[in-house]
Amino acid sequence: MLNINRYQDITKLENEAKKDYIDRHTPFIHTNGEAKKGELHPVTIKMGQEFAHPDDFDHFISQISLFNKNQKLAEATFLPGALGNVKGHMEITFNVVFDKNAELYAQSYCTKHGIWESDPQKIYVQ
Amino acid sequence: MLNINRYQDITKLENEAKKDYIDRHTPFIHTNGEAKKGELHPVTIKMGQEFAHPDDFDHFISQISLFNKNQKLAEATFLPGALGNVKGHMEITFNVVFDKNAELYAQSYCTKHGIWESDPQKIYVQ
Amino acid sequence: MLNINRYQDITKLENEAKKDYIDRHTPFIHTNGEAKKGELHPVTIKMGQEFAHPDDFDHFISQISLFNKNQKLAEATFLPGALGNVKGHMEITFNVVFDKNAELYAQSYCTKHGIWESDPQKIYVQ
Amino acid sequence: MLNINRYQDITKLENEAKKDYIDRHTPFIHTNGEAKKGELHPVTIKMGQEFAHPDDFDHFISQISLFNKNQKLAEATFLPGALGNVKGHMEITFNVVFDKNAELYAQSYCTKHGIWESDPQKIYVQ
Repeated sequence: MLNINRYQDITKLENEAKKDYIDRHTPFIHTNGEAKKGELHPVTIKMGQEFAHPDDFDHFISQISLFNKNQKLAEATFLPGALGNVKGHMEITFNVVFDKNAELYAQSYCTKHGIWESDPQKIYVQ
Repeated sequence: MLNINRYQDITKLENEAKKDYIDRHTPFIHTNGEAKKGELHPVTIKMGQEFAHPDDFDHFISQISLFNKNQKLAEATFLPGALGNVKGHMEITFNVVFDKNAELYAQSYCTKHGIWESDPQKIYVQ
Repeated sequence: MLNINRYQDITKLENEAKKDYIDRHTPFIHTNGEAKKGELHPVTIKMGQEFAHPDDFDHFISQISLFNKNQKLAEATFLPGALGNVKGHMEITFNVVFDKNAELYAQSYCTKHGIWESDPQKIYVQ
Repeated sequence: MLNINRYQDITKLENEAKKDYIDRHTPFIHTNGEAKKGELHPVTIKMGQEFAHPDDFDHFISQISLFNKNQKLAEATFLPGALGNVKGHMEITFNVVFDKNAELYAQSYCTKHGIWESDPQKIYVQ
């Protein structure tokens, strides 16, 4: 079974290398949880909060996908070099029109460490 | 040979349907032309300036790609429904780290009307 | 948490609609389990064994990915219409060069019924 | 304007390096030009005829797309390593159902040398 990695609260971890590993691989969803029906609503997905991920040719974030429950809305694919081949927080802003309440998930893919999934983010639409 | 459609100045066109057709299919790059070396620089690509494109199951914008000269940096793939199945301006923000001057191009793909390419956008890096 | 659907042995199911639902959504890996080191080795992924999936604009298989353990090797993205908009078994053949034993997984994505994962397929390399 | 590279008859070139450069970057379509209406028809796209392309982390074929005239049917995205990081002829077989005559084009993308386009391949459907 393919391993789907999920976020663990890194403040509860003691090992600095493990904090770094988990934080930099986790896609975090940044968005306003209240959306207006029928209007473009920006949803930013940013990798890591404290620790930055490499952008090396043999080790980079190659994909970030956005789901509403189990329905994929959009997906971004990156080539190495988009971050200038230096460590950074890969970040993408999708713009979605919601017509009813949603529950967002992001998945990211690291070419060395596989699939990672965000916590859910509810969107209330009015 | 695959047809690569390019923008024409719609203010010079008389036919309203043709203005609509060209404008809504063209990817426009919105970004600051001056970037700081080594910093994340947002590059937004938005489809159309005046006219919105359908988001129907059989007619939608399924892809927007960002190139620096002939090098692809990133690509976003959309499923129908991301715009709530209503007409809209598909829009995506990539964030790129430039280490030297760049010349950006966007390509988009419409499931009925093929590949479209933006005008170039120069980025000066200091 | 995103739902990852997995194959169930449909011969043990009584409900015909459920057999159809599970079979047509499951990616099956067809390949020779013994590969020669350094040679192109075809790996075919075919959706369903008995039941065919729709290729409608609002309901189709949009993606099939191939993994070696948690490392993605390749991914195919389909637009509706590739199967002529009739029911069919979506099928793709990737060609991979293995340099050591591998354990393959396929994931597929249905625009209505989400992510599905194959059983693992071991590859012995000599 | 993005450069779309096209095949040149390499038998007419004298420079061996240029023959190699053009051949290994060109997607060649291999298929039966006569298809039966409503049946899965395999379409293989293979990079190069004589010269193999590297599969290095910083230099590989990352994408092969299949079009019928200006309509995209499917697209395969590769990660480096699919060819075991050795030189090879990247090859993919899509299976398409044609309901009328078609004119196929393949596009490939090399992470160092950009977009390349195949000669057209006619499909007669009966």
